[in-house]
Amino acid sequence: MSQSPHKPVKLGIIGLGPRGATLTATLLQMPETARIAAICDCDGERLEKMRRHLAENGIVAETYRDSAELLASPEVDAVLVPTSWNAHLPLAIAAVRAGKPVAMEVGGATGCEELWELVRQAENNRANAMMLENCCYGRQELLVLNMVRKGLFGEILHCECGYCHHITPEMVGPDGPLTERGWHNLRRNGDLYPTHGIGPIAKILDINRGNRFVTLSSVSSKARSMELAAGGKCRFNCGDVTTTVLKCANGETVTMIHSVAPPQPYSRRGLVQGTRGIWSEDRKGIFVEGLSVSKNLTDVAGNPYVEHVWDPVESFYDKFDHPIWRDFRDHPTGGHGGMDTLALRAFCSAVAGESDYPIDVYDTAVWMSLTALSEQSVALGGMPVPVPDFTCGKWVTRGPAKPGYWSL
Amino acid sequence: MSQSPHKPVKLGIIGLGPRGATLTATLLQMPETARIAAICDCDGERLEKMRRHLAENGIVAETYRDSAELLASPEVDAVLVPTSWNAHLPLAIAAVRAGKPVAMEVGGATGCEELWELVRQAENNRANAMMLENCCYGRQELLVLNMVRKGLFGEILHCECGYCHHITPEMVGPDGPLTERGWHNLRRNGDLYPTHGIGPIAKILDINRGNRFVTLSSVSSKARSMELAAGGKCRFNCGDVTTTVLKCANGETVTMIHSVAPPQPYSRRGLVQGTRGIWSEDRKGIFVEGLSVSKNLTDVAGNPYVEHVWDPVESFYDKFDHPIWRDFRDHPTGGHGGMDTLALRAFCSAVAGESDYPIDVYDTAVWMSLTALSEQSVALGGMPVPVPDFTCGKWVTRGPAKPGYWSL
Repeated sequence: MSQSPHKPVKLGIIGLGPRGATLTATLLQMPETARIAAICDCDGERLEKMRRHLAENGIVAETYRDSAELLASPEVDAVLVPTSWNAHLPLAIAAVRAGKPVAMEVGGATGCEELWELVRQAENNRANAMMLENCCYGRQELLVLNMVRKGLFGEILHCECGYCHHITPEMVGPDGPLTERGWHNLRRNGDLYPTHGIGPIAKILDINRGNRFVTLSSVSSKARSMELAAGGKCRFNCGDVTTTVLKCANGETVTMIHSVAPPQPYSRRGLVQGTRGIWSEDRKGIFVEGLSVSKNLTDVAGNPYVEHVWDPVESFYDKFDHPIWRDFRDHPTGGHGGMDTLALRAFCSAVAGESDYPIDVYDTAVWMSLTALSEQSVALGGMPVPVPDFTCGKWVTRGPAKPGYWSL
Repeated sequence: MSQSPHKPVKLGIIGLGPRGATLTATLLQMPETARIAAICDCDGERLEKMRRHLAENGIVAETYRDSAELLASPEVDAVLVPTSWNAHLPLAIAAVRAGKPVAMEVGGATGCEELWELVRQAENNRANAMMLENCCYGRQELLVLNMVRKGLFGEILHCECGYCHHITPEMVGPDGPLTERGWHNLRRNGDLYPTHGIGPIAKILDINRGNRFVTLSSVSSKARSMELAAGGKCRFNCGDVTTTVLKCANGETVTMIHSVAPPQPYSRRGLVQGTRGIWSEDRKGIFVEGLSVSKNLTDVAGNPYVEHVWDPVESFYDKFDHPIWRDFRDHPTGGHGGMDTLALRAFCSAVAGESDYPIDVYDTAVWMSLTALSEQSVALGGMPVPVPDFTCGKWVTRGPAKPGYWSL
């Protein structure tokens, strides 16, 4: 099994803000995989700036102010949507309705209605909607996925994940919110950014393929840090730390943390625990029964006890690196340590018909739903709320993804 | 302020099992603080064995088969209860009813009724009931408490804690449960052992002194590891991992993890996060805004971002070690890295009237209640349940503990 050499996929990009710029920078480094065929932004100045930037790199792209026109262009095979949060779903729905496969940037939904519409339109028009969840292609996440699939951790019991990243300075200024994300944090309260954490964990737990999330409960702490950044001029609704607990149909639990307001070192808080092994991102360690060291010791009164010892995560790469990273590790290119490159290659491979979508519309829908459900549970004082089954029962008999280079 | 030299407190010990043996070993190293005046066990052989062991160490202790007789002895100033779990509360209630202050070993309650009885009897008989929560005197926990009280972390927002310790081999044999704890795990489902984690965190959050836990919700994973240890001969009810989320009156959240079945390195999962700083036990780090390093970097598209860097926990001991550990660190003695010694010294100092109880009956009651409430919430599918206010409103006006050597 190897990475197949399809023709470059002709991409249309809707939304040329900061994330559009990072993705474009990455795409320019992978001309064998994709060509930027069309770009669209409602801001004419931003559109022209990107057109010139692409021309300087030898690329002539169609330009559109209206996304509907880009979606109608025969030059466009598939669409990227790195817009502001509220525009992700309407644009993705429009894309699949136009029969174009779409890769959406990460984010959460505001309710489940728009997700059902995405699922129905994707099914009816046979155009998939893939969340461009780059963290699914992180080296560490893929290492752990690989080890879990090989059975090294035994039966999986519990996972943790999250997004702990101090981004208040980018979102809030001395007079209040600076960006759309700042406004979301001003008004909403819940896990507004679940997918970097839950994406890789959902794959490890076979969500939508023999398993599913059944209930979710969320509790938010008080909100302080953004108010401090705004000099007390406005009160933010979003708690500084939101903790969400999910229960799966097969009995696993998942804890998910959202913490973007207070100052702290970055972490995605990854943890996967099974009956024979455990990975902890924060502990930078993996323990596997039989492979790792267990010492027999005695306490002050002579009672025996066992001390299990972490092995460094790095010590497992040599033997258990995922095949994707085994190929990629010597020359990683593109944004976010190469994860953007891999996610884009996976999407283009699926658009070219070489492989299944490693993250499909059901995954996209359920991951995005967690934001809306988290808001609901927080509002209800932490009451568990049911997670919709966007597969309408298909998860019961759906098996593992078809083996393929980009499969997760 | 320093450690005062009171007369040795005359202790009665009820329960001479493994934990009784560890505590005795520690007490024999602190004759200036306490003298073992009486011992009690319903097992005559165990009683005689301990009597001889004490005699070999030059200590003549009264011996009792019946705890009521020990409680009536004028030779006993105060009582330790390191019995099996189900006996902690009946014996502690009997002790305070007899007017003897009691230090109970850690554990959780099976319901709130017996906790109310403990509180009422302690109040009516002016005898306190202190949980002997040694982890409150852990060096790292006291360092963080000290830093929080000095305001280095800003306003506290969120904490995490837990008990992750692979003790299945001590609890379960090839035919099923080996110990009382094994039987509890066979029949009950929830956080059966919350206090090593929540004790230090409750002190940091000023619980019962201007703050309190308001709600709790718990979710348990499937139960597998103990069944595996028993060769599939019996099904255990207690999920391998129980995750509990608490909300405080002042808006802080706490996540608490109980995981004693699957193999894993030991961790109490400590984390304290405020508006200016964060401690992570697993990350072995502390970040304090202004003290720790924050790097200004740019991503692949030239967008600026900040990277905050952990400092090793050890780097803070020199400046912020708690006064108790500043005195103790050069010659720590006793069980569990010296924590047992410190908890016993604190109890004896309070019995001698030198200081307030650093962990009082209200703390003991609310910490123990979390087990019963966790079971209830798990049974209700993760529904939030209310946490009782054992102070009956006194928490609203109760200020910080009176400053004293052993205060927490």
